[in-house]
Amino acid sequence: MKNTEFLDACRNAIGAAHVLTDEADKAGYLTDQRQRFTGAALAVVKPADTAEVAAIVKLCAQFQIPIVPQGGNTGLVLGSVPDQSGQAIVLSLKRLNRIRAVDPLNHTITAEAGCILQHIQEAAAAEQTLFPLSLAAEGSCTIGGNLSTNAGGTAVLRYGNTRELCLGLEVVTAQGDILHGLRGLRKDNTGYDLRDLFIGAEGTLGVITAAVLKIFPLPKAQLTALAAVQAPADALRLLSLAQSRCGATLTGFELMSDLCLQLVAKHFPQLQFPFAQRHPQYVLLELSDNESAEHASALLEAVIGDALEQDICQDAVLASSTAQSRALWQLRESISSAQAMEGKNIKHDISLPISRIAEFIAVTDALLQQHFPACRNVTFGHLGDGNLHYNVSSPVDSSAEQFIERQADVNRIVHDSVDRMGGSISAEHGLGALKREEILRYKSPVEMALMKTIKQALDPLNLMNPGKVI
Amino acid sequence: MKNTEFLDACRNAIGAAHVLTDEADKAGYLTDQRQRFTGAALAVVKPADTAEVAAIVKLCAQFQIPIVPQGGNTGLVLGSVPDQSGQAIVLSLKRLNRIRAVDPLNHTITAEAGCILQHIQEAAAAEQTLFPLSLAAEGSCTIGGNLSTNAGGTAVLRYGNTRELCLGLEVVTAQGDILHGLRGLRKDNTGYDLRDLFIGAEGTLGVITAAVLKIFPLPKAQLTALAAVQAPADALRLLSLAQSRCGATLTGFELMSDLCLQLVAKHFPQLQFPFAQRHPQYVLLELSDNESAEHASALLEAVIGDALEQDICQDAVLASSTAQSRALWQLRESISSAQAMEGKNIKHDISLPISRIAEFIAVTDALLQQHFPACRNVTFGHLGDGNLHYNVSSPVDSSAEQFIERQADVNRIVHDSVDRMGGSISAEHGLGALKREEILRYKSPVEMALMKTIKQALDPLNLMNPGKVI
Repeated sequence: MKNTEFLDACRNAIGAAHVLTDEADKAGYLTDQRQRFTGAALAVVKPADTAEVAAIVKLCAQFQIPIVPQGGNTGLVLGSVPDQSGQAIVLSLKRLNRIRAVDPLNHTITAEAGCILQHIQEAAAAEQTLFPLSLAAEGSCTIGGNLSTNAGGTAVLRYGNTRELCLGLEVVTAQGDILHGLRGLRKDNTGYDLRDLFIGAEGTLGVITAAVLKIFPLPKAQLTALAAVQAPADALRLLSLAQSRCGATLTGFELMSDLCLQLVAKHFPQLQFPFAQRHPQYVLLELSDNESAEHASALLEAVIGDALEQDICQDAVLASSTAQSRALWQLRESISSAQAMEGKNIKHDISLPISRIAEFIAVTDALLQQHFPACRNVTFGHLGDGNLHYNVSSPVDSSAEQFIERQADVNRIVHDSVDRMGGSISAEHGLGALKREEILRYKSPVEMALMKTIKQALDPLNLMNPGKVI
Repeated sequence: MKNTEFLDACRNAIGAAHVLTDEADKAGYLTDQRQRFTGAALAVVKPADTAEVAAIVKLCAQFQIPIVPQGGNTGLVLGSVPDQSGQAIVLSLKRLNRIRAVDPLNHTITAEAGCILQHIQEAAAAEQTLFPLSLAAEGSCTIGGNLSTNAGGTAVLRYGNTRELCLGLEVVTAQGDILHGLRGLRKDNTGYDLRDLFIGAEGTLGVITAAVLKIFPLPKAQLTALAAVQAPADALRLLSLAQSRCGATLTGFELMSDLCLQLVAKHFPQLQFPFAQRHPQYVLLELSDNESAEHASALLEAVIGDALEQDICQDAVLASSTAQSRALWQLRESISSAQAMEGKNIKHDISLPISRIAEFIAVTDALLQQHFPACRNVTFGHLGDGNLHYNVSSPVDSSAEQFIERQADVNRIVHDSVDRMGGSISAEHGLGALKREEILRYKSPVEMALMKTIKQALDPLNLMNPGKVI
């Protein structure tokens, strides 16, 4: 009865065509990207603009209906799918997909939450500028989701996380009010930082409907090299060298263990391995240069030359064309797929102080071997910003399924090790429903209490994405 | 009686020598930097470390004593001095002045709130790294104050505000609990962004006691040029040109009107004006180069050469030594003093979308001339990040005192103009007590309500710097 009345009110507010209640229509919104969980929803509601979002949220507050905001639904921590109670609505932001403004002189772009990340990249490129946020799901994830999860990606070393790329937000509060904060300002000290409170809150404090984002001058050249090193500690020495020589020109610094590239070779034999022999670790470096391809090339050659001379790296290849650069990146980007083709595995999205990464890998690898003999560490990631995808596969010739059953034990070893070294158990994916319990082990009661206080203050009815984050 | 009991408890907690109640001892903490206001305090309390801060805050909560946190007391908006009731304590953080750690590999420095900014710069430099926050008060302001006001300064264009330079915080909450958030991580998505809530809150939500700050590879060379341009719009064209050519190597971009440099010439005749003739506007550019002085020099010459050729600028000088660079910066840094020596004036610390700055200056200058004929605009600032110090002096040969009496009317014209163009009435100084009423005119009721909700949730007794910000 209450639900019928609520759904009728929703249909009145935004049109019946945009309130999906048929099971078939809803199905595409209820399962997470990695198909691990399927929830249920009273309806999938698809407002067209901010005013309609506000109207729907007001109705939800009035009828006490929980709201699960959803963008591209590409998240990895079950943050954008509803639970199985069927009481919540999925609030899809996909129809809020307009680029509202591009201001090249102010270096800003204003985009609605449902804009696909790739479309924003393209809108920036059309003005000869760069929107640097880049990640695997960019063809289907939305900027609202990127903001709500403070997404990272491959360019954080130079440009920061999504948080650092956002100057202003438009938000619908849990009460259904519109916070007009679309300021395109580099400096603004007029009160509490509401923007950063909604960024990374995974839709639990309000609904982000639009954002002013930073764009940058388009680099004249991007150049890539792959260096072979002996150990993670040498990769870190190479990072220091490259940073001191290249400054902000260094835009990518990715670590891959030899096992990562062995799996790529096995499952993607068409991808060429660029060295004559194998090495324990590899580093992918990328420079983005505002001067010229010649300048970038000379700089990269100088850095690699120094590293070879100082025995920091043992071998290196420099891409001399965009096609070669793409080929090197493809090695890096094929690791996840290669590992999946090898069988199910246990993934960790962790970050550490960069100075402790070598120690972390050594200590944690050893701990895992002790408890799970012959398990395989498939370690790679954005070394430049301390973010490792520290994935673990089952031993060769043993059951991946059986190994996965011990995921909680593996997590415990890895996450405890992360915690001892001052790291984070979720670097760029968020908490969602998946790590909501896990984080209680690592955050202090004071921090959890502050988070609860804020949640309670901004969403006293607990209707905004309940069961996520907190 | 209550007060006596409270003060005794404070003395027990941190030692009698650090609880100042003599008027003479307190005096230095009660007047603001520009000597516009003197408040009163029950005591000035000077804890030695975070545990003592927590103990004092707990006592304040217990006895319901308001707290005014204070660092170097160099703020410009009356944020760090108490009101005249005499009921509050000043909580001086000056004794929390230890550099706790420098981690060159992680590019972080961990410093307590009472560290003088310059000491942090020096600690970073000792490790061949750069802590880029730099502002006029750096010899006496503290990092706790910089964080609490999200200070800006001259390097925001490249490195961001204090907010962007901070990775983690230790905070004593209004309840006297310690939030241990000294994480040195570039990526951490494990819940609400408490860090950014305390940054810029001007001590109204809790007391920042320590921070993990970003440091950077020390540039190999810094090079400065002064370019003469016809109008602010040309300065903006020069900015676009320099940004597209230099990227992140461009670390400073300051605008100064001719009147600014005329006042400097009048009051600091020993400083040399570097051009043969006067021009309407000047731009100070600074490059920080990770390669070499030669590279920086060639790049700067190329940019200036292009600008001259495209008639964006009419003349330019390039500093060929550190001494010459210093001399150019001294012109810029002497403007405030020169204007003060010319007489009292009305200051505005504003920011705008960069694309609207030329229009803002034209429109607002004209409005002021209409209402205050012959008033003098002394406009300069950090053009690269949209921050103008839009100061107004009285007409020549008229009374500065009488002009100052009409400050509210001048502010109304300037701030309304800022607001119409999407700007901020406080770019880098904060709100404090000075702009707390003024902001009500420009923030929406929804934004103010959210700020009040947060204040009420985190500081329900309203003891943390009451009467500031909100």
